Amino acid sequence: MHTVPRYGYPVPRVADHEARRRQVAEAVEQLIADDGYDGVTVARTAATAGISVGLVQHYFATKDDMLLHTFTVLRERVERRTMHDAEQAGQAGARIEHILVPALREMLPLDERRRRERRVLQAFAGRAVENPRLAEALRASNAHLEGVLAQAISNGKLCGEVVAAVNEADEAALLLAHVDGLAQLLYFDPERSAAQTALADHIHRLFPGPCHHPRA
Amino acid sequence: MHTVPRYGYPVPRVADHEARRRQVAEAVEQLIADDGYDGVTVARTAATAGISVGLVQHYFATKDDMLLHTFTVLRERVERRTMHDAEQAGQAGARIEHILVPALREMLPLDERRRRERRVLQAFAGRAVENPRLAEALRASNAHLEGVLAQAISNGKLCGEVVAAVNEADEAALLLAHVDGLAQLLYFDPERSAAQTALADHIHRLFPGPCHHPRA
Repeated sequence: MHTVPRYGYPVPRVADHEARRRQVAEAVEQLIADDGYDGVTVARTAATAGISVGLVQHYFATKDDMLLHTFTVLRERVERRTMHDAEQAGQAGARIEHILVPALREMLPLDERRRRERRVLQAFAGRAVENPRLAEALRASNAHLEGVLAQAISNGKLCGEVVAAVNEADEAALLLAHVDGLAQLLYFDPERSAAQTALADHIHRLFPGPCHHPRA
Repeated sequence: MHTVPRYGYPVPRVADHEARRRQVAEAVEQLIADDGYDGVTVARTAATAGISVGLVQHYFATKDDMLLHTFTVLRERVERRTMHDAEQAGQAGARIEHILVPALREMLPLDERRRRERRVLQAFAGRAVENPRLAEALRASNAHLEGVLAQAISNGKLCGEVVAAVNEADEAALLLAHVDGLAQLLYFDPERSAAQTALADHIHRLFPGPCHHPRA
């Protein structure tokens, strides 16, 4: 890093920018997980991230921007993990049904890490009713994931697992709604093991047929 | 009302107590719907309800108590409306399936009144991750509704609509999770008409058989 006097604090190289923003998001996520949404302040975020308040403000003009970015980073991380598993399974030539079940289970709060993630996402979803920008980010994030699921359902039609009459977009939205409802159920009552088989059942009903083309 | 000097404000008759508590709950609900959860203060609640701060404090020792009561009153109202429809249909001898579909649709934000209710419930669900008493109230409220649904599924087994192998408690929880996920989906994207048929499909899968005994 080199110091640019007019900012009065060290300005990182361009390559560091994304990493710094991510570092701030991780600090915000930790604060929400530990102390709740109201526990987030720019000062506490800077302290948690181990950087100056000025540097946090360099990246985020308002606390709201910081929270919005945190939501996006968190959703992207969960999604990336989900898709990583799905790609591995796809390369191994598994049925789409058997790719989707463990992939979407990544969104259920079945261990401490996913419980923390769910806790933070649930807090964001509650605030979204009061915050139009957060509501829009939630809609956009859902729309993206629905697109991925719709593609999986469409692939299922091509290979024979899904019947032709199914509407991909509708079923993708409903599958996501089901996962979300199950995640909330499990968050508040972790002993509900039935939620896991319910997800597999839902996906099995959507992908009942045999797959006719082996995939690479 | 008669004045009890040591309180310094009029104390209502016993019969009024529940009505007053309900009046406070309605004011809190209105404040959350209009201005969000953070807009709730004891002073604003008193002003909205048209009563004194002292009277609000007579009924609720803390703001938290007031919020908790509001959540309970709101959930009970939604549930009572749901059950009212179900009882009417039950008396008319309808299939259980056809009773449950419109009853549970009462929980979906399909008009302005239900959108407001959902907005407030969603705000509460977001806060529940930070507030153990609210989380417990949410769990208790879900458990109660799940009990009602489990009874409906159990009745379905007796009359032939539901297959014997079904686990009532599990299916009741999953049905509620599905309704909740659909409600959130519809709240943030009201154009999703597929959510309504999805609910009917879910219930139809659970109640596929013919009903062998006509009910009174």
